[in-house]
Amino acid sequence: MIYLDNSATTKPFPEVLDSFVAVATNYFGNPSSLHELGRKAERLLSQAREQVAALLSVRPNEIIFTSGGTEANNLAIKGVALQYRKRGNHIITTAIEHPSVTEPCRQLEELGFEVTYLPVNAYGRVEVETLARALRDDTILVSVMHVNNEVGSIQPIEQIGELLQRYPKVIFHVDHVQGIAKVPLDMKKARVDLCTMSAHKFHSLRGAGILYVRNGIRLSPLLAGGGQEWQVRSGTENVAAIVAMAKALRLSMEAYEQQIRQLHVLKERWFEALRHMDGIELHTPIKHSAPHIINFSLDGLKSEVFVHELAKQQIFVSTTSACSSKKRAPSKTLLAMGVEPKRAERSIRISLSWENTLEEIPVVVRAMEAAIQKLQGVKR
Amino acid sequence: MIYLDNSATTKPFPEVLDSFVAVATNYFGNPSSLHELGRKAERLLSQAREQVAALLSVRPNEIIFTSGGTEANNLAIKGVALQYRKRGNHIITTAIEHPSVTEPCRQLEELGFEVTYLPVNAYGRVEVETLARALRDDTILVSVMHVNNEVGSIQPIEQIGELLQRYPKVIFHVDHVQGIAKVPLDMKKARVDLCTMSAHKFHSLRGAGILYVRNGIRLSPLLAGGGQEWQVRSGTENVAAIVAMAKALRLSMEAYEQQIRQLHVLKERWFEALRHMDGIELHTPIKHSAPHIINFSLDGLKSEVFVHELAKQQIFVSTTSACSSKKRAPSKTLLAMGVEPKRAERSIRISLSWENTLEEIPVVVRAMEAAIQKLQGVKR
Repeated sequence: MIYLDNSATTKPFPEVLDSFVAVATNYFGNPSSLHELGRKAERLLSQAREQVAALLSVRPNEIIFTSGGTEANNLAIKGVALQYRKRGNHIITTAIEHPSVTEPCRQLEELGFEVTYLPVNAYGRVEVETLARALRDDTILVSVMHVNNEVGSIQPIEQIGELLQRYPKVIFHVDHVQGIAKVPLDMKKARVDLCTMSAHKFHSLRGAGILYVRNGIRLSPLLAGGGQEWQVRSGTENVAAIVAMAKALRLSMEAYEQQIRQLHVLKERWFEALRHMDGIELHTPIKHSAPHIINFSLDGLKSEVFVHELAKQQIFVSTTSACSSKKRAPSKTLLAMGVEPKRAERSIRISLSWENTLEEIPVVVRAMEAAIQKLQGVKR
Repeated sequence: MIYLDNSATTKPFPEVLDSFVAVATNYFGNPSSLHELGRKAERLLSQAREQVAALLSVRPNEIIFTSGGTEANNLAIKGVALQYRKRGNHIITTAIEHPSVTEPCRQLEELGFEVTYLPVNAYGRVEVETLARALRDDTILVSVMHVNNEVGSIQPIEQIGELLQRYPKVIFHVDHVQGIAKVPLDMKKARVDLCTMSAHKFHSLRGAGILYVRNGIRLSPLLAGGGQEWQVRSGTENVAAIVAMAKALRLSMEAYEQQIRQLHVLKERWFEALRHMDGIELHTPIKHSAPHIINFSLDGLKSEVFVHELAKQQIFVSTTSACSSKKRAPSKTLLAMGVEPKRAERSIRISLSWENTLEEIPVVVRAMEAAIQKLQGVKR
């Protein structure tokens, strides 16, 4: 099996799963319980929070654990909108966000909020000047992703943070789901107020995510109830998944330290190999792009059929983001970049992890060539 | 260890944890992915949905998987309120609901909704006539729990369902978290529209819950995004936790078939033993109460100290619900039942599972007597 769909989900590290099992078995108490079993669970939860905070260079009380990236994005966006609705009702985001940012924005439009969806340039990058022009007196929130999930373009988060320094009433949210442990982001330096991460994108298990909430920012709770996570996110804490996530984050950040150069080399070799193939157009920009996402399109071939053909050889790639792949709509990021719709419909995404190797490239290239030949033969 | 805090959380069944590990290891694909790994994960998810639906005697497309009970309650209440806000803005609930029902209601009050909190009688039970009188032309939602989490009183869900039959525009939500697999509830017969369940209360893992949504009911999504779960609940599905939950639900319902009589006997013996102790007042009503929750209070002893004293003997009980236990406020259910505040502050909750035994009773009673003697000695 050659798994090249790591932006959809990653295979959990075995030692991370081991931690999950150990906690679920031996520390099953409810962290809110007064007795020893509860206190033991609460201690593990606190340790995980401290570990995550240290890895992200923030404070433990700035870490809110959620059920995943979608919840964290919904909490950030709706939480700010409802909390600060008396301050203003204008939100700025981009045309290339993940649906878990776009859809909450659409829901808020129904409730009377105004949302500006910023365009991006041909490289899939929002321009700071465009954002600057969109800011208004009643803007309460700017939400911009760090690494685009479809083409891998990196957004100018630090420059946006610098701009927003002059607008202290505007809250800055960053969807960092595709960037964490792959593209560095210093949340303090970039003046980020809210930042989303998801465990299953860095070799941990589903059921856990992180919302960084800078001290001083208040959020209307999305999941209200028992008052866990400083009243911001209620629900019995998934201690086993959170402890596992803290471990996976450490391992992923260690992998970054040790392997980031190899990952860049890997991506360059992929670029080279794809450039030598006929009928392929690369969409991932060369500059300002993440080391693990490669997007391209195929001349005259339906991408869905191509994905299935490669899967027969146990090679797993994607047409676009996982959650959009069954909708058969052309990639909205490619459309926003100005790629023509016919071309955007034929896109393929390769997404790498620390476990991929150079040796896989010729194997996949041969399989791709065979698939193209076969599918074009069928067409004739 | 004698664990008597099963309403806070349960120990996962070992075979349930095994299922989780098998799925997380071998079927880690994203169910939305087009390729084989995704399709395999999607198939497991569908099977789990069919299994849960069959166990609950509902249709698979009426099952929405959430991250847990708190999310399911928030989705039900806010989802109805926002979806049907043009129909009316009045909500009816009770004074004894779990905070994950009460708090969303309070948030909706801030947004302009009106909420009626129904009182209960001395047995911790809401009266259908009281509910009937509270219904208005602009009522859109009635939310009543099945089994109260603090004292175990069972609410007249079927009778409420019968009443609401005459109000077809009122949506009926039931928090069934403490009732599932312990107190039968036929959702179709009781005309329930929305029903909440939580995996970790029936020996599965955290990170999964169920919201039953009757066909025809629409909900404004709480977690908006990629459009999973028929657009009602976005986020990459936690397939491993969902498969584990389906298995735990089956095992728990089998345990119900085989052991419910013993559980009732166990509770009666507990009642008997507690009645014979000095200075104890039972608060769990004899009639219309669940077989697994026993609430009582202690003359002149702080319940928190008593919980810690028992924990030293590896006996784990609770003062009240887990999420309220650190707030040190008197049990709101006891207050609503008319128990005087001083007494309500001294409550202790024992909550049983299928794994508890008759043999534990004398051991705990001796430990309780010793604890009372020691703590009253300290007081003097």
